[in-house]
Amino acid sequence: MEGIGIVGAGVAGLHLGMLLRRQGVPVTLYSERAPQQLGSGRLPNAVAHHHVTISRERALNVEHWDAGEFGYGVHHHYLGGPSPARFIGRFSAPSRAVDQRMLLPRLVHDFCDAGGTFEHRTITPAEVEELARRHDLVVIATGRGGLSELFPRRADLSPFDRPQRRLCVGLYDGIAPAEPRGVTLSIAPGHGELIEIPMLSFTGQVSALLFEAVPGGAFEAIAACSYDADPAAFHRLVLEILREHHPSVHERVDPARFGLTRPLDLLQGAITPGIREDFAMLPSGRPVIAAGDAHAVVDPVVGQGANCASYSAWELGRQILDDPHFDERFCRKLAARRRNLVRATTDWTNLMLSSPPPQHLQDLLGAMATTPAVADEFTENFNHPDRQWDILATPERTRAYLAGHGLG
Amino acid sequence: MEGIGIVGAGVAGLHLGMLLRRQGVPVTLYSERAPQQLGSGRLPNAVAHHHVTISRERALNVEHWDAGEFGYGVHHHYLGGPSPARFIGRFSAPSRAVDQRMLLPRLVHDFCDAGGTFEHRTITPAEVEELARRHDLVVIATGRGGLSELFPRRADLSPFDRPQRRLCVGLYDGIAPAEPRGVTLSIAPGHGELIEIPMLSFTGQVSALLFEAVPGGAFEAIAACSYDADPAAFHRLVLEILREHHPSVHERVDPARFGLTRPLDLLQGAITPGIREDFAMLPSGRPVIAAGDAHAVVDPVVGQGANCASYSAWELGRQILDDPHFDERFCRKLAARRRNLVRATTDWTNLMLSSPPPQHLQDLLGAMATTPAVADEFTENFNHPDRQWDILATPERTRAYLAGHGLG
Repeated sequence: MEGIGIVGAGVAGLHLGMLLRRQGVPVTLYSERAPQQLGSGRLPNAVAHHHVTISRERALNVEHWDAGEFGYGVHHHYLGGPSPARFIGRFSAPSRAVDQRMLLPRLVHDFCDAGGTFEHRTITPAEVEELARRHDLVVIATGRGGLSELFPRRADLSPFDRPQRRLCVGLYDGIAPAEPRGVTLSIAPGHGELIEIPMLSFTGQVSALLFEAVPGGAFEAIAACSYDADPAAFHRLVLEILREHHPSVHERVDPARFGLTRPLDLLQGAITPGIREDFAMLPSGRPVIAAGDAHAVVDPVVGQGANCASYSAWELGRQILDDPHFDERFCRKLAARRRNLVRATTDWTNLMLSSPPPQHLQDLLGAMATTPAVADEFTENFNHPDRQWDILATPERTRAYLAGHGLG
Repeated sequence: MEGIGIVGAGVAGLHLGMLLRRQGVPVTLYSERAPQQLGSGRLPNAVAHHHVTISRERALNVEHWDAGEFGYGVHHHYLGGPSPARFIGRFSAPSRAVDQRMLLPRLVHDFCDAGGTFEHRTITPAEVEELARRHDLVVIATGRGGLSELFPRRADLSPFDRPQRRLCVGLYDGIAPAEPRGVTLSIAPGHGELIEIPMLSFTGQVSALLFEAVPGGAFEAIAACSYDADPAAFHRLVLEILREHHPSVHERVDPARFGLTRPLDLLQGAITPGIREDFAMLPSGRPVIAAGDAHAVVDPVVGQGANCASYSAWELGRQILDDPHFDERFCRKLAARRRNLVRATTDWTNLMLSSPPPQHLQDLLGAMATTPAVADEFTENFNHPDRQWDILATPERTRAYLAGHGLG
């Protein structure tokens, strides 16, 4: 038997692999893409690592981009509507966004340096049983290639059966950084959100613009507009959307310099959020574990995907180290262990996607505009989606929380 | 609203009440017995506090009997049968047994000193709704008075529908302490167990003898033998059982001094182990939480009742402090939080009661006899029933564990 087999070279697979290698556990990581492919090609996403995730990277000795230098400490909020509101929320420690095409190959390098085996090989669902015979335990840490389908979807925890937003994320030059450096969360009620992220990419510090367009809303077109067909028309559309719906970003644009950094630094599409079972039993009776996107697909609207994947990988890794007996008890313990945070992540994210937003979420956002402590806690809780959900799970909870701040 | 209402003045109720009072939360504790009644009357049980529980008492500043002075550091094992085995298992830190008639009134005193409200009042199931209207949250921390029935029994986690042992527990003079001071666990295969506990009671250090008699086994009679009708006959029967089945205790008896310390220092009976739902929703929609015996009734064979009650109260208290919103989310988080340890406690205890004991348990006990590290870990895991169950949950787990020790 050859230790742990991990399918997928994203944050979940690599954080898990690194944690296990640091403790001397044999690990093979299967990736459909070679390291040089992970480091090139189209922009895969625009991911922020919050400080809970960075602290895990520090513990693994893979924090190569110091968050104090490359990160940011605040969220700038713009709430559009008849009387727009602007306010800041502060983190207790910085978050950091690095292009995953830089980050993942570096993690693969660390993993191999630490004695991990990297195998460039596509695993199909039919091959998982063979993998399970070869390894003590197999972990599916990718949602690609139909592997998610091994794990039944939890309909009771997955309220949406179609995408709630059309997505368009790209890297841009020509936007002056917000002061202090931070993410901008700009909400255009009824139409969707723009998340602007200061990101380190191949060309240096750039601005990621992630448009979260409500289907049928005013800027849905950006998710389908072809850059390659007509770059100038694409840029015009982006600027027009910024001007009309996201003025706190638009006012920092230098039209002379504005533009996509490179043609491949753009991704358009949509995802259906959902949560799947933590594990499945193969016909042989061997278990297979879900992590990352195979377990929970979250819309990027509040930037939780990578953090949830890292958390989930970490809990799995700790349990592999604590109790390396890979039976149903192992699986059930794991499910109980990560249940609260993973579900809170998806529940909170799904609430943020609701159209129209429920009154208690509007009340909280309104309170953030007037009360810095509330805005700071909402921001800090990007590290703690379980605590965010403690505040937002029900209207009563939000009311009690706001009352605790002397509001409402 | 008047803070938290706790029904039951046992370890669960008092540890919870103390934890909340130390953080300034208003608490009312309802007890069907006044403090002087808690401190008198018939022996209620023979309970050891292991060091995880003692560390909680220390954190609450209610550790009045130093475990280094009054406690013990080992388990002495005697495995009867054709070729008896004797061996020791060592704790990493001492356990301690104090007569609950001394301990509980002292805890009530601490609780009142810390600003808690003690109400001498019997609560019936019909009155729980009224209590729920008066308090922010009601916790049922007693199995008495039909209050357990609020919480449906989990048949899937409760394998027994009748008692597995007849119990007879009493405090005795005239037994020299084992060396080093410790509990003796003496197993008479097919007939049951004797647990001898060095206990501090009103008359000083005494020996608690807890007979766990298999129904129909050789010493079942002790559970029904009337001390009051004929003390000498009762003593004769105890000595005869010790001589025949528990020689490692019998050899330390001084017949001239041997006898029950006081007529009320004896309890005979039987319990049906079982586990119930973590919470229930009252007709009004308010939740009520189960703790201690209301949640899990465990046979005393491996001394887990008080420790599980304390653990469970602690987790509940931490959650009340972290997230004082008493809705269904609160209840479900609590259930997930304490699930692994509470279930491991009952599953392990129930395994120890199985007749005949399954082969993998026999293998582990056999390994303890030859391998001190295995005996020490089994003993230390009286603090960590979840880790004990990691070893004992399946034959494969026990086999892998023993293989890790170069055995089998």
